Amino acid sequence: MLTREENELLTRTGPGTPMGELMRRYWIPTLLSWELPDPDCPPVEVRLLGEDLVAFRQTDGRVGMVSAYCAHRRANLFWGRNEENGLRCVYHGWKFDADGRCVDMPSEPATSNFKDRVQIPAYPTHETGDVIWVYMGPPTKQPAPPLFPWTQVPDTHRGISKIWQDCNWLQALEGGIDTVHSNFLHGGRPPGLKYDESTARGRANNVSRAADVEVVPTDYGYSYAGIRSMPDDMSFVRGYHWVMPWNQIRGYTIDPGHPKNDGHMWVPIDDNNTLVFNWTYTLGEEPLSERERSLAGSGNQLGVDIDIHDNFRSVRNRTNKYLIDRQVQKTQTFSGINGTNTQDRAIQESMGAIADRTLERLGTTDRAIITARRLLLKAVKTVEDGGDPPGIAPSYYRLRAGEKIIPKGANWFEEMKGWLFSLEEPAEQAV
Amino acid sequence: MLTREENELLTRTGPGTPMGELMRRYWIPTLLSWELPDPDCPPVEVRLLGEDLVAFRQTDGRVGMVSAYCAHRRANLFWGRNEENGLRCVYHGWKFDADGRCVDMPSEPATSNFKDRVQIPAYPTHETGDVIWVYMGPPTKQPAPPLFPWTQVPDTHRGISKIWQDCNWLQALEGGIDTVHSNFLHGGRPPGLKYDESTARGRANNVSRAADVEVVPTDYGYSYAGIRSMPDDMSFVRGYHWVMPWNQIRGYTIDPGHPKNDGHMWVPIDDNNTLVFNWTYTLGEEPLSERERSLAGSGNQLGVDIDIHDNFRSVRNRTNKYLIDRQVQKTQTFSGINGTNTQDRAIQESMGAIADRTLERLGTTDRAIITARRLLLKAVKTVEDGGDPPGIAPSYYRLRAGEKIIPKGANWFEEMKGWLFSLEEPAEQAV
Amino acid sequence: MLTREENELLTRTGPGTPMGELMRRYWIPTLLSWELPDPDCPPVEVRLLGEDLVAFRQTDGRVGMVSAYCAHRRANLFWGRNEENGLRCVYHGWKFDADGRCVDMPSEPATSNFKDRVQIPAYPTHETGDVIWVYMGPPTKQPAPPLFPWTQVPDTHRGISKIWQDCNWLQALEGGIDTVHSNFLHGGRPPGLKYDESTARGRANNVSRAADVEVVPTDYGYSYAGIRSMPDDMSFVRGYHWVMPWNQIRGYTIDPGHPKNDGHMWVPIDDNNTLVFNWTYTLGEEPLSERERSLAGSGNQLGVDIDIHDNFRSVRNRTNKYLIDRQVQKTQTFSGINGTNTQDRAIQESMGAIADRTLERLGTTDRAIITARRLLLKAVKTVEDGGDPPGIAPSYYRLRAGEKIIPKGANWFEEMKGWLFSLEEPAEQAV
Repeated sequence: MLTREENELLTRTGPGTPMGELMRRYWIPTLLSWELPDPDCPPVEVRLLGEDLVAFRQTDGRVGMVSAYCAHRRANLFWGRNEENGLRCVYHGWKFDADGRCVDMPSEPATSNFKDRVQIPAYPTHETGDVIWVYMGPPTKQPAPPLFPWTQVPDTHRGISKIWQDCNWLQALEGGIDTVHSNFLHGGRPPGLKYDESTARGRANNVSRAADVEVVPTDYGYSYAGIRSMPDDMSFVRGYHWVMPWNQIRGYTIDPGHPKNDGHMWVPIDDNNTLVFNWTYTLGEEPLSERERSLAGSGNQLGVDIDIHDNFRSVRNRTNKYLIDRQVQKTQTFSGINGTNTQDRAIQESMGAIADRTLERLGTTDRAIITARRLLLKAVKTVEDGGDPPGIAPSYYRLRAGEKIIPKGANWFEEMKGWLFSLEEPAEQAV
Repeated sequence: MLTREENELLTRTGPGTPMGELMRRYWIPTLLSWELPDPDCPPVEVRLLGEDLVAFRQTDGRVGMVSAYCAHRRANLFWGRNEENGLRCVYHGWKFDADGRCVDMPSEPATSNFKDRVQIPAYPTHETGDVIWVYMGPPTKQPAPPLFPWTQVPDTHRGISKIWQDCNWLQALEGGIDTVHSNFLHGGRPPGLKYDESTARGRANNVSRAADVEVVPTDYGYSYAGIRSMPDDMSFVRGYHWVMPWNQIRGYTIDPGHPKNDGHMWVPIDDNNTLVFNWTYTLGEEPLSERERSLAGSGNQLGVDIDIHDNFRSVRNRTNKYLIDRQVQKTQTFSGINGTNTQDRAIQESMGAIADRTLERLGTTDRAIITARRLLLKAVKTVEDGGDPPGIAPSYYRLRAGEKIIPKGANWFEEMKGWLFSLEEPAEQAV
Repeated sequence: MLTREENELLTRTGPGTPMGELMRRYWIPTLLSWELPDPDCPPVEVRLLGEDLVAFRQTDGRVGMVSAYCAHRRANLFWGRNEENGLRCVYHGWKFDADGRCVDMPSEPATSNFKDRVQIPAYPTHETGDVIWVYMGPPTKQPAPPLFPWTQVPDTHRGISKIWQDCNWLQALEGGIDTVHSNFLHGGRPPGLKYDESTARGRANNVSRAADVEVVPTDYGYSYAGIRSMPDDMSFVRGYHWVMPWNQIRGYTIDPGHPKNDGHMWVPIDDNNTLVFNWTYTLGEEPLSERERSLAGSGNQLGVDIDIHDNFRSVRNRTNKYLIDRQVQKTQTFSGINGTNTQDRAIQESMGAIADRTLERLGTTDRAIITARRLLLKAVKTVEDGGDPPGIAPSYYRLRAGEKIIPKGANWFEEMKGWLFSLEEPAEQAV
């Protein structure tokens, strides 16, 4: 439960808001690289943290990310021409480069030096892991590049998509780090149905209705675990990372033959809309299958679950009731909705654009959520006081998540920390 | 004409508003029984007086009507599972019964008694006349059940539908109790056309352009009449009832072989939207024909005029200009719009979401409207002062409406009161 | 650049606003005459300067323009019956004439004289040039009729259309009087492409990237010119008029065999929407071709570019990204959007509903815009002080625009003024 003031503080991210200032200290994922496929290709509209931007790939391959509005008369540069290393407004031909400088002003006399005094807001970008990232904070505070482990593997070893969600970012984050709901929303059994016992997770789920949640704060956010009792006095542990403010790293399996991680990033478009990134990668030598790379089955597959022509909206959405099948819900699945993340969106969007957290009743298994809120509020304060926020130092470069069977009562963190923090240095060179 | 303050007072019905508090003292019609056809069938979304609710039919057949938002993290219970005598949230499996009590909380440890302290708002329901009613007021003030005469006949003797209207409830009520407009909007003749003289009403309409309106206040609201001059020094009277706050009872005919009553209930969804119920029943022995039961021709027929798949919206609506035919309007009907109640909706919605009553110019034939406003304002005051509102006592159980030809100048109420108040006691047992 | 206060003042036009008061001193174009084709034809909805009106053509041919809301109970008169010299509300049959007087009130007793005290707001109209104009200001201040030269030629010599634009009127005006953008938005060449040298304008465009803009204030607004250098020490001049507050007169050619003028009127529907009129006419003896009359190619052609069945909306609009073709933009045209005025709408709407003019950076070529704002602010003040605004006296009756080649350095206004102000007196008799 939050006070009204705390709820406002955590959910408002526009320019000048405390949470917005915190978020602007991180690299923000925006476009998938293929949205700007070639030098001088058409520009793309971007809305981020309540700001309207336009992105374009210059002739030299570099991506510019500038304010959408031309300095002259406020025409939107989305209609502009992406010409030789600059974006030209089609209204009067003013041209801006990726640094926001006006580099040509053909509507004024050739003798004028007016253009040298004209600039539009522009933000530095970094491209890695098939994603274009932008930094919208103070120039002197720009952190090391966002070399998350999943960005450092070859394309063949990674899958990524993004999708529009119709609610505030915090609902999406809180749904993501809430490992307990997976036993209900995603895998809950209708009366009489049991889980498949051929996997450790299935055996655990048949014993444990809910996971215990444990959280270990770190310098980047926290590591956390969902712990489920198993037969034979063992426990099944899923160990995760939350990297502030919006990153989750999640392990599918610790099978040494095919270890994978996946996760999300939940980025505010504005306070009522969120851009959700979904990624997966293999930590092994073999590439992912095409099916794995496509994120099939999760509700996050581009072109199937995500309508690329409709601004990355979910095909199953509130207006069509997520195509819920009540008969399936009664007899086969807990929700009657197809796709793990479609189920998440349905539930998270059902709270309204911004959930009223003053009316919640939280339990012991909401520990990860409670801790995340506390750490976010603390980070806001740190930045307000002139400090650096957590999670910008490159300590997250080496994180991985995983699953493990441990003896009941053993300390999960001691058992797993060797795995959780031990990746190689990033292949890409930090700037 | 109302002051701005009075107009606000009469039209605002959310929680905590004076009119909202008054309305919450009555049984409120919400769903048609067939919307919850079976025990454990899928739940249904309900919005009423600005509150978001979810309705579900328990295993024991009883209908629960609870706040839409799960106590835990505010997921909407509409996505929930209707299981053994309770609605289970699919997010973390919390289960609530029809009294709003949390009866299962599988996400918390089995030893926890947290669930015993968790509750969601829940409202008592009553089912009669193919309608599910809800009481949203103080528990100690719950009135006798809503045994309107039309609810007490067999299904075969009754027809009922409901429809969404895009404006404030008061416009709908005021349109309903305004008997004068029927000579214009519904039955007005284009120049040169006369009414069919084979009926008393037709003969009256050819003499009287407008009805005189008379109102007799009662303990439940008022009885009122539209009186039209006829040839041969007679008058044609239609006698009605208005039962506070939103019920109308209207008679079709006094033909002793086939007496019928019908009417409406106008219930706020919120301040800009109204749920209109339409009912008809026969007071005679013979059942209604299928055509009569379907409400054919009135603009209220489910599936024909009302799109059940689009949340009971009118098929003819503002976006398609109610399919007005201007040529028909010129030569055949006064409005060019099909269906009596479609005509009503067109006119009532055309005033805007909430009509600006500070600019009205009311005449003598607006007497019923003026009186209703006065009685509503008085009832609001009564409730604010701790009293009981009119129309909750079961005096309305025996009301019926009708039509009669009386000598010109005779007292309509004396002539008709024997009919108007003399039904049998309700068949159903009052609680 | 404007202050926030100035921007508000110039863009807000509802009843009681200073700019709204100024605009209400002019004849306002509303409907094309064919929208009310016959006496007693169906009425038409009109929204103008934030007021909801209904227009109807009386039996005597005269057009009434009255408040949309019936005086009685605020039903919208759009649903009304257009009967013998009056519009009858279908709710209770009250009938109003073009002066707003209630001329029949059949719902009240025949002996009542209530109707004589009932009136709705009504505005005088004038019909000329295939357009119905309305005057919404103080009756004693009604100006001479709007006999613009283009209204005074036979239908065969004129073309006219109108179209809905999704932004504030001032963006549309400022786009219209900004002659400089035509070298970029409308005719800009992709790299490597040159203009056709067979016309003077083409030869000038290949020399001049941008026009010099000069403005000569007059008693009706101003005359202005775009001046482009040409080979051989000559200049190519386009001379225009801006007639306050929303009229533009523009010349296509000075070819004495086929001189034409065209232009626009930009009228606020409300502060977020604008009604744009597009007209063209020939000053010569020969009628226009059907293609010229239809406004083909400009993005203003009724039925092709303008969807008459969708309230005169642009077929190419923001929701379909104006059907921009990025490949065409790269290789053939500057914008990739079809139709000169579709390009204008795309750019003007891209600034948002109301452009934030506090963030502009204006150059020397924005002189016409800067002057127009200054004159509008001055006119607002004049009216507030009890004076008469500019442009209501009939000095604009004789204006025409044109193009001319003059020696470089010559005074454009001296060279052209003989043409610009010398039309005949209007054929139509001023009232």
